[in-house]
Amino acid sequence: MKKNIGIGLLGLGTVGSGVAEVLVTKADSLAEQAGLPLILRKVAERDVNKRRSARLGPNVLTSNPEEVLSHPEVDIVIELIGGEHPAKEYIERAITNGKHAVTANKEVIAKYGYELFSLAGKHNTDLRYEASVGSGMPLISSFQQELAANKISAIHAILNGTTNYILTRMAQEGLDFASTLKQAQELGYAEADPANDIEGRDTAYKLVILSNLAFRTKFVPQDVYCEGISNIAALDFLYAREFGYAIKLLAIAKRDDDEVEMRVHPVFIPRDSQLAKVDGVYNAIEVETDLAGKLVFYGEGAGSLRAASAVVADVLAIARNIYRGVNNVPEVKLNQRGTVKPMSDITTRYYLRLNAPDRPGVLAQISKVLGDNSISISSVIQKESDLAAQTAVIVIMTYPAEEKGVQKALKQLKQLPVVNEVSNFIRVEG
Amino acid sequence: MKKNIGIGLLGLGTVGSGVAEVLVTKADSLAEQAGLPLILRKVAERDVNKRRSARLGPNVLTSNPEEVLSHPEVDIVIELIGGEHPAKEYIERAITNGKHAVTANKEVIAKYGYELFSLAGKHNTDLRYEASVGSGMPLISSFQQELAANKISAIHAILNGTTNYILTRMAQEGLDFASTLKQAQELGYAEADPANDIEGRDTAYKLVILSNLAFRTKFVPQDVYCEGISNIAALDFLYAREFGYAIKLLAIAKRDDDEVEMRVHPVFIPRDSQLAKVDGVYNAIEVETDLAGKLVFYGEGAGSLRAASAVVADVLAIARNIYRGVNNVPEVKLNQRGTVKPMSDITTRYYLRLNAPDRPGVLAQISKVLGDNSISISSVIQKESDLAAQTAVIVIMTYPAEEKGVQKALKQLKQLPVVNEVSNFIRVEG
Repeated sequence: MKKNIGIGLLGLGTVGSGVAEVLVTKADSLAEQAGLPLILRKVAERDVNKRRSARLGPNVLTSNPEEVLSHPEVDIVIELIGGEHPAKEYIERAITNGKHAVTANKEVIAKYGYELFSLAGKHNTDLRYEASVGSGMPLISSFQQELAANKISAIHAILNGTTNYILTRMAQEGLDFASTLKQAQELGYAEADPANDIEGRDTAYKLVILSNLAFRTKFVPQDVYCEGISNIAALDFLYAREFGYAIKLLAIAKRDDDEVEMRVHPVFIPRDSQLAKVDGVYNAIEVETDLAGKLVFYGEGAGSLRAASAVVADVLAIARNIYRGVNNVPEVKLNQRGTVKPMSDITTRYYLRLNAPDRPGVLAQISKVLGDNSISISSVIQKESDLAAQTAVIVIMTYPAEEKGVQKALKQLKQLPVVNEVSNFIRVEG
Repeated sequence: MKKNIGIGLLGLGTVGSGVAEVLVTKADSLAEQAGLPLILRKVAERDVNKRRSARLGPNVLTSNPEEVLSHPEVDIVIELIGGEHPAKEYIERAITNGKHAVTANKEVIAKYGYELFSLAGKHNTDLRYEASVGSGMPLISSFQQELAANKISAIHAILNGTTNYILTRMAQEGLDFASTLKQAQELGYAEADPANDIEGRDTAYKLVILSNLAFRTKFVPQDVYCEGISNIAALDFLYAREFGYAIKLLAIAKRDDDEVEMRVHPVFIPRDSQLAKVDGVYNAIEVETDLAGKLVFYGEGAGSLRAASAVVADVLAIARNIYRGVNNVPEVKLNQRGTVKPMSDITTRYYLRLNAPDRPGVLAQISKVLGDNSISISSVIQKESDLAAQTAVIVIMTYPAEEKGVQKALKQLKQLPVVNEVSNFIRVEG
């Protein structure tokens, strides 16, 4: 009979230090809920300064991950170092050493989830990842359990706090992208190397994880069409408002017969929609289901304690099983590879912003290119842009059109002598 | 080794027929997820017409609940007849017969939850009730599992679709309560006997269930201060809008040191708050936590398939445990009786609407009564109401004040010669 449950922690960064804090300060309440005390036995962190700042016993801290992975009294390994390697290999070693694993690592789960779940199944250990999407919001478990009887038809989600913070500031203050990013970095809302966030990759990983659960098929990050927010100009926010829209970086997955479209890119969404009102570092996930109808989850998708909430919930779930002596490791169904709808086949509405000479006949030529590619215009705004140069900004909102037709039209517009520049085009959703 | 899992169903009403439909039409997908086929073996319904309309085999339908409760091949009994008795006794008999139970019955769980969980624990059976609050929204499980590491400090929720539908129509169309209720009944959004909904009792049951999970103590329906919506007049919506508020029936639970205040009543909430924008039959629950921050769940809180989503998820969770041969019945901790903060001790802001003669000095006398009871006024609107009678409507918004002082002031105002009528008073939240 076990007297306690040993926890090993890899990584004392933002999330790791939050988890360590919760495990220590809430030890009594967690023990009561788990049935046994949860003991943080070993914490591996390479950064000496982080180790110093942690208020953990000297025997707990180590710079060597192996001491966590092979510790005989560690039952559950929490991986919080992030990134692809060596995080994936650490999780593998934890599992092959017979330990349960908990991770917040969206990149590893999006890329190697099925491989790792299958490995965990073979070793009769559990691998949990509630914190990988939406931090403390109960998404993974809701998709796995409470929505299990549903057929999910669509997901629309704001899944990245950094980009949503930047877009919110740009919308509110009329600033351009570069200076807003710089401010966000100074305030700690964006990392020094923000590429993963602003290029949409972080969001794409999360969308893959949710889609695999929602559609019960296997997708990989390459399946997601991915476009970041660095092209959005202050001017686009002005026109968005004029047409009644907000600009958000959305993760979109839709099931259409047997194909799933999966995309991450900036969108115009109606200003009165729920997702349009999700500001700052908040995340929100809208799920459309056949039985439960439309559900929305809203919360903070990042932060030390937010993620710790989900990580410790995963630890508690495993601990309860250990305490009861039940092997409740989920069975891994080797799901079929999902069929992705090619991006060129999607149909949506579009916002186009062009720069052209301010003279008669220009709009006629632009309209002809669009018409030739089966794109109907729903409205146009033309504004004098530069009096001296006699150029105008032409903004076009289209009716639903096929992406491949729009891409062809954009090429032709760029070559059209009466078009100085195709300044931007943004898809419209909802 | 079991070859399938037998389901027994009590009640073929709105939710019951939805559950039967899902179990039959989704049989293949559910079997795949459970590991074994789920067979609907016996359905008890007293109403002959409902039995006739169900497309179930003749051996499945019965008018005798005992045939479900004691059926040797029924592993899980789903109770969907609703109401207090005999629903509670049926659940008890299912459990003592060694069957797992699933229910959507908020009244039984709010009143007898702990008793029934304890009984289920003794018989090593599971009792699940995800559908009892918020239908298909994953609330119960989120409170039980994903938020387990959190200390929850407050719940603000719209938990009843009927009242929210009525308040939404009143706000949008300026109608009075009685005619809006009548319309709602004709459209099927309110029951023939709407008392449970409009008097707030349905909401109070749900608040008790959520509070028991959130605060890990034991509350009963009598602990909830409960006030319905029938006193709200069209005029109150006009003034609410003028002051920047919406009117909603909220369920509120707040932890304050070791006391919990629990109340269900109409409130003024800021028009730009998330709950103010929850319209029609939608529900929303806002939860404040120490680790996960503020979370909001939004979805349809009623309807046949909405509830079926949660009921079948509960069935699947039990079926998976049966299939794996694990006894994963939650341990029942006999929690302490919660300490309720008396309603007279709560502090909030108030909206008062009075009718008084339209003459100088009236407001001075009213203000004096409020001041004598330590109530400060934040703003006043005075409007001529009836030219002939020379009466005015006086609307007062207060600063935070204690409920007991306000109740005392209301009594005194009613006796004040210069007050014709205390027309309404509504608490302000947020």
